[in-house]
Amino acid sequence: MTPALPKALAFDVFGTVVDWRTSIARESAGFLAALGLADRDPAAFADAWRAQYIAAMVGMRKSGRAFVPLDVLHREMLETALRDWGVDFSGCEEALLADWTRAWHRLDPWPDAVEGLTRLKARFPIVTLSNGNVALLLAMARRAGLPWDAILGAEVSGAYKPDRRAYRHTAELLQIQPGELCLVAAHHGDLAAARSAGLMCAYVDRPDEYGGAPAPDAHHEQAWEWSATSLTELAERLGC
Amino acid sequence: MTPALPKALAFDVFGTVVDWRTSIARESAGFLAALGLADRDPAAFADAWRAQYIAAMVGMRKSGRAFVPLDVLHREMLETALRDWGVDFSGCEEALLADWTRAWHRLDPWPDAVEGLTRLKARFPIVTLSNGNVALLLAMARRAGLPWDAILGAEVSGAYKPDRRAYRHTAELLQIQPGELCLVAAHHGDLAAARSAGLMCAYVDRPDEYGGAPAPDAHHEQAWEWSATSLTELAERLGC
Repeated sequence: MTPALPKALAFDVFGTVVDWRTSIARESAGFLAALGLADRDPAAFADAWRAQYIAAMVGMRKSGRAFVPLDVLHREMLETALRDWGVDFSGCEEALLADWTRAWHRLDPWPDAVEGLTRLKARFPIVTLSNGNVALLLAMARRAGLPWDAILGAEVSGAYKPDRRAYRHTAELLQIQPGELCLVAAHHGDLAAARSAGLMCAYVDRPDEYGGAPAPDAHHEQAWEWSATSLTELAERLGC
Repeated sequence: MTPALPKALAFDVFGTVVDWRTSIARESAGFLAALGLADRDPAAFADAWRAQYIAAMVGMRKSGRAFVPLDVLHREMLETALRDWGVDFSGCEEALLADWTRAWHRLDPWPDAVEGLTRLKARFPIVTLSNGNVALLLAMARRAGLPWDAILGAEVSGAYKPDRRAYRHTAELLQIQPGELCLVAAHHGDLAAARSAGLMCAYVDRPDEYGGAPAPDAHHEQAWEWSATSLTELAERLGC
């Protein structure tokens, strides 16, 4: 049975719309070289940095720590990744660490993203539902040409995905029912949490997100309402 | 002395970017006719509806009432305006009153707005800093073609202008200082509150906002950092 069309589309961003690994590796290559570490693999550093992400989200939730923007967590994860790599950054200039952290504002879109979003936007409101904070997503969108109707998600809702409040509050802000909102994501874990919160789900396959390595949340795979290999293919499936 | 340029522009919307009076009069003409009141002046009804706006904002603040989206207040103000006009709407269908309330989602832009915003966006991030709620501003932007980078303001900040938290939280979300953010507004009262919160201010003259009647907040006029008669003229002044 063909599911009813959603009234709006909400997008995961890191990995789904933008290629964080290639972009963070490119940026980190320069910063590592500035620290005299030009011989280290910047893609492996990108993986080490991102690997702490899920743990950081769980940590935020379990510790009861007050909400802080993702930029703050990215900085903490950067320092942990450097320590794990045995890098002494105590003499490092603050401006360098701050700029390195902001590398997450400068991620490149997947090749189909701008065309796919533009086509989808002609028919559906398109908003972010990302753990990225507003300033990060706004800078990224201006640099990459991502035509969001609104920047919603963790910071606006005060809760990080997969907390169900992040999904449900986004529907509330759009004045639609959770079941009228469709999350578009490349991550089965994110989609599983969205479905549990009552949303519709569209999966976009991004086999290169982890440089060919398997996704850490593959065990959450289910039959989703829609599935596509790109945002342009998703636009076709949704009649755009 | 020429002031330093801001890092981002935040816009008042009702009256500054869109012509609420003409649009609400056009919409209300149809609804009044449906109630058998085709002989009443729809522009006067628009004025009666909007006249309660400032009182409603003050009332929200003084009463300590929990934040509700502007759509809820627009509905209450609609019913008050109808009662003030001696209109019995007790037999009215709920769908009609709901649709009438959503007339505020369907306001037309001033003729210079889309071109002005597009030019300003090429150089500055442009966001809303409106008391309108997210769903209202998103629907309005999609219908009118307003190219916002992000929809911020009262609902996202949990406080209605002129509460200083609305202005300062918007700067915080953009990761800039209040003094690096410029409010663009056609209302001296709004600008005075923004300046008091530390923002830069740009005034846009909209002499037709109240159908030629004087603005209720004219006594707040000051020398603002910028002043223009349209958003295209503001774009020129800011080098866009």
